[in-house]
Amino acid sequence: MKDVKGQFITINGERFYEIANYDAMQPFFISLASDTDLWMYLSSTGGLTCGRRSPGEALFPYYTDDKITESYEFTGPRTEIKAKGEGANGGWLPFSNHQQPVYDLSRKIAKSAVGNQIVFCEENHTLGLRFSYIWAPAGQHGWVRRATLENLSGQALEIELTDSLLNVLPAGVERKTQNEFSTLVDGYKKTELVPETSLALFRMEAILVDRAEPSESLTCNTVYCLGLPRGRYDKTPSKGVRGAFVAEADLQLPAHGSQTWYNVLDVSKDAVAVHDLMRFIARPDAIEQIEQAMHKSTETLKRIVAQNDGIQQTGDEANDARHFANVLFNTMRGGYYLTYPPTSDTQDLPLTFGRRHGDPSRPWNLFNIRVQDENGKPVVAYQGNWRDIFQNWEALSYSYPLFINHIIAKFLNATTADGYNPYRISNEGIDYEVIEPENPWSNIGYWGDHQIIYLLKLLELSAKHEPEKLQSLLNERRFAFANVPYRLKSYAEIVADPKNSIRFDDEEHKRIQALIPTMGPDAKLLLDTNGQIRHTTMADKLLITLLTKLSNFIPNAGIWMNTLRPEWNDANNALVGYGASMVTLCYMRRYVAFLQQLIQTDVQIGAETLDFLRAIRHAYPNGNAKQFINIVGTAGEAYRNKVYTGLSGEMQTLEQAELQEFCAATLHKIDDSIRANKRTDGLYEAYNLIRFTDNDIEISHLYQMLEGQVAVLSSGLLSGEEAADLLDAMRASDLYREDQRSYMLYPNRRRKSFLELNNLPDEAKNLPVVQKHLGTILKQDCDGGIHFDARYRNANDLPDELKDLYEQVFNHHAFTGRSGTFYKYEGLGCIYWHMVSKLLLAVGENIARDGNARLKAQYAEIREGIGSHKNPAEYGAFPFDPYSHTPSMAGVQQPGMTGQVKEDIISRWFELGVSVTNGQITFCPTMLTENDFTNGELRFTYCGTEVIYRKSKIENRESGLTLTKEQSQHIFARDGKIQQITVEV
Amino acid sequence: MKDVKGQFITINGERFYEIANYDAMQPFFISLASDTDLWMYLSSTGGLTCGRRSPGEALFPYYTDDKITESYEFTGPRTEIKAKGEGANGGWLPFSNHQQPVYDLSRKIAKSAVGNQIVFCEENHTLGLRFSYIWAPAGQHGWVRRATLENLSGQALEIELTDSLLNVLPAGVERKTQNEFSTLVDGYKKTELVPETSLALFRMEAILVDRAEPSESLTCNTVYCLGLPRGRYDKTPSKGVRGAFVAEADLQLPAHGSQTWYNVLDVSKDAVAVHDLMRFIARPDAIEQIEQAMHKSTETLKRIVAQNDGIQQTGDEANDARHFANVLFNTMRGGYYLTYPPTSDTQDLPLTFGRRHGDPSRPWNLFNIRVQDENGKPVVAYQGNWRDIFQNWEALSYSYPLFINHIIAKFLNATTADGYNPYRISNEGIDYEVIEPENPWSNIGYWGDHQIIYLLKLLELSAKHEPEKLQSLLNERRFAFANVPYRLKSYAEIVADPKNSIRFDDEEHKRIQALIPTMGPDAKLLLDTNGQIRHTTMADKLLITLLTKLSNFIPNAGIWMNTLRPEWNDANNALVGYGASMVTLCYMRRYVAFLQQLIQTDVQIGAETLDFLRAIRHAYPNGNAKQFINIVGTAGEAYRNKVYTGLSGEMQTLEQAELQEFCAATLHKIDDSIRANKRTDGLYEAYNLIRFTDNDIEISHLYQMLEGQVAVLSSGLLSGEEAADLLDAMRASDLYREDQRSYMLYPNRRRKSFLELNNLPDEAKNLPVVQKHLGTILKQDCDGGIHFDARYRNANDLPDELKDLYEQVFNHHAFTGRSGTFYKYEGLGCIYWHMVSKLLLAVGENIARDGNARLKAQYAEIREGIGSHKNPAEYGAFPFDPYSHTPSMAGVQQPGMTGQVKEDIISRWFELGVSVTNGQITFCPTMLTENDFTNGELRFTYCGTEVIYRKSKIENRESGLTLTKEQSQHIFARDGKIQQITVEV
Repeated sequence: MKDVKGQFITINGERFYEIANYDAMQPFFISLASDTDLWMYLSSTGGLTCGRRSPGEALFPYYTDDKITESYEFTGPRTEIKAKGEGANGGWLPFSNHQQPVYDLSRKIAKSAVGNQIVFCEENHTLGLRFSYIWAPAGQHGWVRRATLENLSGQALEIELTDSLLNVLPAGVERKTQNEFSTLVDGYKKTELVPETSLALFRMEAILVDRAEPSESLTCNTVYCLGLPRGRYDKTPSKGVRGAFVAEADLQLPAHGSQTWYNVLDVSKDAVAVHDLMRFIARPDAIEQIEQAMHKSTETLKRIVAQNDGIQQTGDEANDARHFANVLFNTMRGGYYLTYPPTSDTQDLPLTFGRRHGDPSRPWNLFNIRVQDENGKPVVAYQGNWRDIFQNWEALSYSYPLFINHIIAKFLNATTADGYNPYRISNEGIDYEVIEPENPWSNIGYWGDHQIIYLLKLLELSAKHEPEKLQSLLNERRFAFANVPYRLKSYAEIVADPKNSIRFDDEEHKRIQALIPTMGPDAKLLLDTNGQIRHTTMADKLLITLLTKLSNFIPNAGIWMNTLRPEWNDANNALVGYGASMVTLCYMRRYVAFLQQLIQTDVQIGAETLDFLRAIRHAYPNGNAKQFINIVGTAGEAYRNKVYTGLSGEMQTLEQAELQEFCAATLHKIDDSIRANKRTDGLYEAYNLIRFTDNDIEISHLYQMLEGQVAVLSSGLLSGEEAADLLDAMRASDLYREDQRSYMLYPNRRRKSFLELNNLPDEAKNLPVVQKHLGTILKQDCDGGIHFDARYRNANDLPDELKDLYEQVFNHHAFTGRSGTFYKYEGLGCIYWHMVSKLLLAVGENIARDGNARLKAQYAEIREGIGSHKNPAEYGAFPFDPYSHTPSMAGVQQPGMTGQVKEDIISRWFELGVSVTNGQITFCPTMLTENDFTNGELRFTYCGTEVIYRKSKIENRESGLTLTKEQSQHIFARDGKIQQITVEV
Repeated sequence: MKDVKGQFITINGERFYEIANYDAMQPFFISLASDTDLWMYLSSTGGLTCGRRSPGEALFPYYTDDKITESYEFTGPRTEIKAKGEGANGGWLPFSNHQQPVYDLSRKIAKSAVGNQIVFCEENHTLGLRFSYIWAPAGQHGWVRRATLENLSGQALEIELTDSLLNVLPAGVERKTQNEFSTLVDGYKKTELVPETSLALFRMEAILVDRAEPSESLTCNTVYCLGLPRGRYDKTPSKGVRGAFVAEADLQLPAHGSQTWYNVLDVSKDAVAVHDLMRFIARPDAIEQIEQAMHKSTETLKRIVAQNDGIQQTGDEANDARHFANVLFNTMRGGYYLTYPPTSDTQDLPLTFGRRHGDPSRPWNLFNIRVQDENGKPVVAYQGNWRDIFQNWEALSYSYPLFINHIIAKFLNATTADGYNPYRISNEGIDYEVIEPENPWSNIGYWGDHQIIYLLKLLELSAKHEPEKLQSLLNERRFAFANVPYRLKSYAEIVADPKNSIRFDDEEHKRIQALIPTMGPDAKLLLDTNGQIRHTTMADKLLITLLTKLSNFIPNAGIWMNTLRPEWNDANNALVGYGASMVTLCYMRRYVAFLQQLIQTDVQIGAETLDFLRAIRHAYPNGNAKQFINIVGTAGEAYRNKVYTGLSGEMQTLEQAELQEFCAATLHKIDDSIRANKRTDGLYEAYNLIRFTDNDIEISHLYQMLEGQVAVLSSGLLSGEEAADLLDAMRASDLYREDQRSYMLYPNRRRKSFLELNNLPDEAKNLPVVQKHLGTILKQDCDGGIHFDARYRNANDLPDELKDLYEQVFNHHAFTGRSGTFYKYEGLGCIYWHMVSKLLLAVGENIARDGNARLKAQYAEIREGIGSHKNPAEYGAFPFDPYSHTPSMAGVQQPGMTGQVKEDIISRWFELGVSVTNGQITFCPTMLTENDFTNGELRFTYCGTEVIYRKSKIENRESGLTLTKEQSQHIFARDGKIQQITVEV
């Protein structure tokens, strides 16, 4: 096996990370970025899909990553190079993996540090030839493939070249149609060549529609070729089959000479655009124009990332590239601001460039990129799941701090009066899920954890940057409630069936829908009896969120998950109903402590909220878990009833003293529970299972989970030493994966084999109940083993008398969800990088609080595990590219828009020692090492201002620099008053 | 390019058709049959899917044919053969198409004449090795792959073998899930190897479900290997990735020695079955058992086909094989009888083995094979679209004539009181389509043509076999009406909007559905006011069908297609509403002529039917088309109103004389119209377009269609000379495709290129209306051309003032449907073989009526075009296998269950000179040639009785043999009284 080697190199003035002998690695999947709506996903095999805007406008089929990886012999570039005199040999097929090694070959792949270009290169040492091609976006021109054939030998060579792009899609094919009906779609395809040109038009003869009416197909996807001397394209036209662009040429390559040519691909061109293209192709400077567009595309993308503080110049190029990628993908997910600073209208969030999650590894998520309107003007557009998008905005907020309170307002206005949050938000308001009877995957419910920690992080940021502002907002009555037509059932009903806790209020849903045409997005806000939007104070909103959680607090167990959705790791979906989250409780600890700090005055809150608070407080005197939850649960029901029948609108004063007492008592209660969940191995429980008994609640524990440790580390409960001890315990635990030097979500477990799985224990075989059902529900094999009939996938349909036996065989009590039954994503043996980076951030926070040397070493170790310095073979892809997860049997999976990027961006500010307290910026790096500097310097931008760390001659580097409030404000406002900051460190 | 050669050969005692150098052909798609529920579709590339029962129980992914064809490097068998000492070479990969020709290779593929086995063979002349494998069904064992490696050289060879089956699916994956979410499905996969065996279990760790509950996966797909000395399988187990069965072995091949091994694959095994398998594999005679099962599987399939008269032994093996295949596929579609002769209960149709249409070339049709119940007993089950299944039963009826009247009863009981037929029938009654609001492809309507011709052919058959019986049924009041809750609108409404002619009666639909639990399939029959099934006479049913058609008869245009469905060629779907079918009119001609013959007594018919008949008759005196349709259309409406409000149940007598007069007048009327539709080129119009004007109906003609010629030839109108003239005219027309020596559905037409398509004529450019919309609806290109914006796929959304201009540019008036916009199936340039075989049959009928010598030559020519004697390269696949169509750019497509097989089976009886008249069988071959005999003999079975044609020494061969009624009855009854018939010919 050849050695896989990675290094940074320069190609045409751009930095690339090159992997030599990448063909010795498992194929890996890559996302290419662009400054526009051009998207591309490709495999290191060369198989790819790309297009504009959405999967419905693709140039090659948008299938799942596994299929794209396998597609490369039939889809995408295929080049046949026949050196004269090699006739019998049939030619060299670079990048084919099914050829026999008649040639001595070596391969390289390189991705630009900017993330928008990729180069495939194969050298044929036998023939003395090197073939390479690059994929690059070129703005309005589309995707460009520039190919080069080099004669490395000392003699002239004559070459017969056939260079093709296979399986080019026509315009006008829906993704699902292509996926399910490709054989039918092929029947409609036509590929035309515009006479006297290389311009090929990939069309449907008609658009597939459901009705028997003409449906003219008036757009086409286009491919043309530039730069190929005497290129022939007459094999391109076709009908009724997959389209292919085929270029042929006879090349004369002088010794050490080379030939370069271009394919340019775009989608959905109408007649006018095709005429424009014909004219463009005829221009003598067409190639120059294309090169310029490629260059401009890269520069624009750099500018976007630079604006978001993504460009750093340190002594560690791998780090810089990773940071660039983190910011790039964070921006692609959450967007960036078109205008800054903000107007005073807190509704105003002029975000652009963002898109929903979605790539071929995640077929249940589909992106849609809207960056420009029809006239090429940038548009404001964002859309994302609640669970995702606030994370990206949090990271963005470090660079655009004046929008923080707008984001908090967006957050709070979208929480409901009963204390939860909707499914998705966009520039057009909120979305909630509805029950679609015909879709078995449709479902409703509330995710619980994110509201506490996401909101808290935004509040903390706001308090650091504009402490007075946040204070002043507390009593401002201008926050709305989202109106989601879910109705949580009564406490007794939820206790009786916690997997069935929400009623969908169809009437209310219809009322809301009916209002949308006149009211727009505001129709989804809670209205008062006059049809006006109901407003309340920030303090009220902050407390409702907390009280709602407390009304589900089961001491020593955690927050009861009874709103039909799991927490962060939704692969643990079976915890819903009987799970309790210590994770959320940990985050609440930090939230309560923050409120305690924040609220230094009396606050105005809703009359119903005040009643709710006092009813909760009433539960705190000692009692067992059941007594506690009975009280708080009933308090929650009482509050909800008022919400569902109509809030009074009356505001009352909650005095500071009462609130402080409440917070202190709550903290005490929470801390007790967290401490009680410390395991003997030094780790903490993350989720528990509960069971109501007659007089109490039975709590049972699950296996270790990384998430629980992160939550405890974030909670603020642990001292530096305790945190370091926990990290040591984790390192020694089964959460650690030696080969990747990092942490799995839970210990890898061996699943039973098929023959072990479904077997009655010997002692059960003679039970009368077994004998009774033998031959029907139970079946005996030829070796005497007895098994449940394969229809019984769980105990639901079994007669009661067999249920215990089934449980004995299958142990479904400990079933946490799909996390325990698959091997990718959040599954068995997987490292889920987002959570590792949350860990890193939490450790950083502990260091910031308590500069413990053990913690610093632990931080460095976790950071190295994340991988920008890993060998590509160890990492499984370009190490500077973030990916979602690493399963046990392959390298990193699912490129790009992972939540990890947001955590790492924030950690990076910590590493650089940039912090804000009380509106003042401090630069005080304590985590940097010699390697981070180059020529004694380290450069980055912060809020767009260039910062230079210069290594001081003075010994004590820890002094740092703190700016004044006024100086800091200039930086926050990005007003250009301060151009550059140099810090001696 | 190597020469493609086809020939019949014998392998292990079975006849195979072998194609040498098949790799010089385009890849083709193949269906393998089995005697059980085992199914397999594969490409000549080696890519395949197979399994049991349905696509949801597949061993390799059930994707569309295009994807299966391309899948072979990653799915299915992959063998690597490394001869010792060839180390540097990496080994030989038989059947890979991406290897460079370091070796001198040649390939063959062979399919057994029985149709259930296929052999791939590659010979490596360089290494002196031959590798081959066969796929074969083996009953309860599943699919077997037997591989053989032969040392052709004179010296011993040591071989390192790696023999794999790639991408084996686990049990429990739905087809759609696999297609859309394969990357997720991979994450759940686990492949286990049972210790100490070669048995691999392909499993999901859990079954994917929509709910957060455990879903144990308790079955697995299985693969094991037998016969490989010291085989190693330790590369097989895997987790989270595609399953693969990997066998490795070091083989010692003596000079001219060989090694054979077996893979056995099956689906959905539970724990008991796996234990059985483990025991089986350990048996010393396991291989012998497998071989026996393979053999038995073939013999059983032969027996099934033999029973259906599929085995013939003539001098023309290609013909015999084709006939076998025709019967095989006809049986697979329509089934065969489990018991015979029938009971007197005409509801009784004990069919088994049949299945719905569906293969990977037709992703919108899914088969489901139910041949046995859980205890292995054969089950009665059939299901098919009305449009399909009666055809197959027609062909079946030649061999099982005593069921004909049962089938007629099935047919008539399933027609509605308003004269139409439901969508689908099965052993559980009828199905009609309902409107599904969420499915854009859902639709309702009635197909029109099939009822006349299918019913007629069955009636003709009945009249030939049991003339008195059919007579006696005419007045028997025991035929029901299907109750389909479609309500045809009033005549005026249909005239106003013929594309919107049916209302779905939701109330009635609900009433029907509510009755099903108590009444079963009878709930879908028309009930009287007492809730009893309404019955009427056969005569009534026969007349209602005719009168309904006549109520849509537009003289000189045809039968108006106003029931939302097209006729036979549903790719002409845009004819619905404004099309009129001459095809149906031609079939009606034959139907009326038949009724005239049949009905020789007074008949009892419904009072409403009699009124209907008289109202129609009232229209016959001369008048123009509009006057005619006004009268008959209104008569139809009046009749329907009575049906929809409730039939009286009163029967009245229609006197023979009145009926005869009605038939004669109707024939006259129809004949005039057919004659008027003769084109100047000698062909006949098939469909016309109509437009209601103030005082008349404007009729416009379309291009030539094969279907129209077939209908005229079937109608009985033409004399032998006229028929021959028409065939000459067809041969000279653009319907003929020289390269395939056969006929397309319509002339191939060149579609406009993209640049030609959407262009305003120069003279329109300065029109004020054009200037007005320039820049919005119209767009100008840089060369001055003006185009409609690409959004306007038809004129629907255009302002009225632009509609004429749009029509001028796009000519949508002549749009017939998707037939004109695609290149596969019934599309442009395609030969649709079912229609060619209908042509052959129609010519045969003309010959039978009038033994015209020209017709005989024409028959022979058409027959040769169909292709059993074609070279495989010309045909595009195994020439003895029937396929659906041949597009212009490839060989035959869509293997197997084409309607062609039914036509060819019937034509074959004609060729053999077997006919039945007045209950008497005659053997009188006039179409056979010397080549049909072998050693002076020709053998076939007829109703299971062996018939031998022996070449007579006597000169006059045309005398033939006619059996008595009694003898014939023994044959029909298959009672074994007559074992063999020898005819001197």
